[in-house]
Amino acid sequence: MPRVIKHPEIRREELLDHAQALFLTLGYEKASLNEVITAAGASKGAFYHYFPSKEALLEALAERFARQALAGVQDVLDDPGLDPLGRLNGLLAQSRRAKIDTAPEAWALFETLFRPDNLVLFYRINLAASASFSPLLVKIIRQGVEDGTFRTFDPEGVADIVMQFGMATQGVIAKAIAGGSDADMDVAIEALENRVRLYEIALDRILGLPDGSICIGEPGYVRAAMTARRRTNSGKAQ
Amino acid sequence: MPRVIKHPEIRREELLDHAQALFLTLGYEKASLNEVITAAGASKGAFYHYFPSKEALLEALAERFARQALAGVQDVLDDPGLDPLGRLNGLLAQSRRAKIDTAPEAWALFETLFRPDNLVLFYRINLAASASFSPLLVKIIRQGVEDGTFRTFDPEGVADIVMQFGMATQGVIAKAIAGGSDADMDVAIEALENRVRLYEIALDRILGLPDGSICIGEPGYVRAAMTARRRTNSGKAQ
Repeated sequence: MPRVIKHPEIRREELLDHAQALFLTLGYEKASLNEVITAAGASKGAFYHYFPSKEALLEALAERFARQALAGVQDVLDDPGLDPLGRLNGLLAQSRRAKIDTAPEAWALFETLFRPDNLVLFYRINLAASASFSPLLVKIIRQGVEDGTFRTFDPEGVADIVMQFGMATQGVIAKAIAGGSDADMDVAIEALENRVRLYEIALDRILGLPDGSICIGEPGYVRAAMTARRRTNSGKAQ
Repeated sequence: MPRVIKHPEIRREELLDHAQALFLTLGYEKASLNEVITAAGASKGAFYHYFPSKEALLEALAERFARQALAGVQDVLDDPGLDPLGRLNGLLAQSRRAKIDTAPEAWALFETLFRPDNLVLFYRINLAASASFSPLLVKIIRQGVEDGTFRTFDPEGVADIVMQFGMATQGVIAKAIAGGSDADMDVAIEALENRVRLYEIALDRILGLPDGSICIGEPGYVRAAMTARRRTNSGKAQ
């Protein structure tokens, strides 16, 4: 039988599919790289060629999640009826919708990142995930500066601040997860909702917009994203 | 000879003095905990009682540096002639002056924090250093909200954002250090100065102030702080 030569990109995607399936079944912490390699029917050499470590695998999964989440956003970017603020809010809404839709899987794969001792991995994987998000953000902010909607001298810098705001929630989310009780979770969700409000107003003002212009999270968004984890963990996924 | 019983706080300060002296001579990386213990003439048991690890020692040194840096700030806080913006700028100016004054020692002790793989340690030590800075910041912001100078619903949250801005410079500083040439350093210093400008305007706006109200770094501040390291490293300290 002739050996089937697959395109490297297809092979890589297949390996990611197998890894994701195994991480969803066993959990990222418990699944070993050897189990992933066996499940994928790959040679060790081929596997390590694509993913030199388990963390590199998680990084690639995060990058793929983020890319898929933004697949539908091109409509928003191309819509001639939207001004830059509409585009920015559309981009944030799309990213939010994708997060809610994939929340149970995302928690199962990435919960490990919210352990305090995984801060470096959290940053690395956040950077990988932002690789597709950040350039869109810069582009929209730059458009807004050009047409006078936004008022800043540094669109790249403002995009970095948006990313920082996202990364800074790690501590709050870590606390929400560490607390075991429903009351702990409620306190943490309220803290996170409050922080989202602050970041919205901060971004409004950094861009020279009236308070209430930018929507990072609708009411209920934080709770929906956080409780998706609890449903998964207790095995009562809807 | 009767054994001299020292107050635990005095003993702790002495151990920190010895550690600081040794780190300044040998460098933090090269000095071992055993050398610090020998230099301090302490028993291992006593030493580990105060500092369970070398990182805990660095954390305590950072906390002490920050506390000393703010020793002169009480005048600013008590000055009845200053409004909240004057107090905030006074606090930032004091912290800046202290950083410049202690820059050669601070670089020798803390340069290790700007290695990419020391991100967790950087965060931990930044938190320790901010323990004395952050409450002052919250207090001043709250005063400003009460008298109508500042406009925000979340003084603690804004103080957190100030801290985040500080932490986010780690990457830029790491890059400046990694680049070997003077040209690399110039590019990095310019990037950092630009980022300071952005953070100043961002804070102005987050607090509802006109652009140009808050001064995080005077012109030349970044260069002065960064080049203090080069002088030290090349042995040409002034």
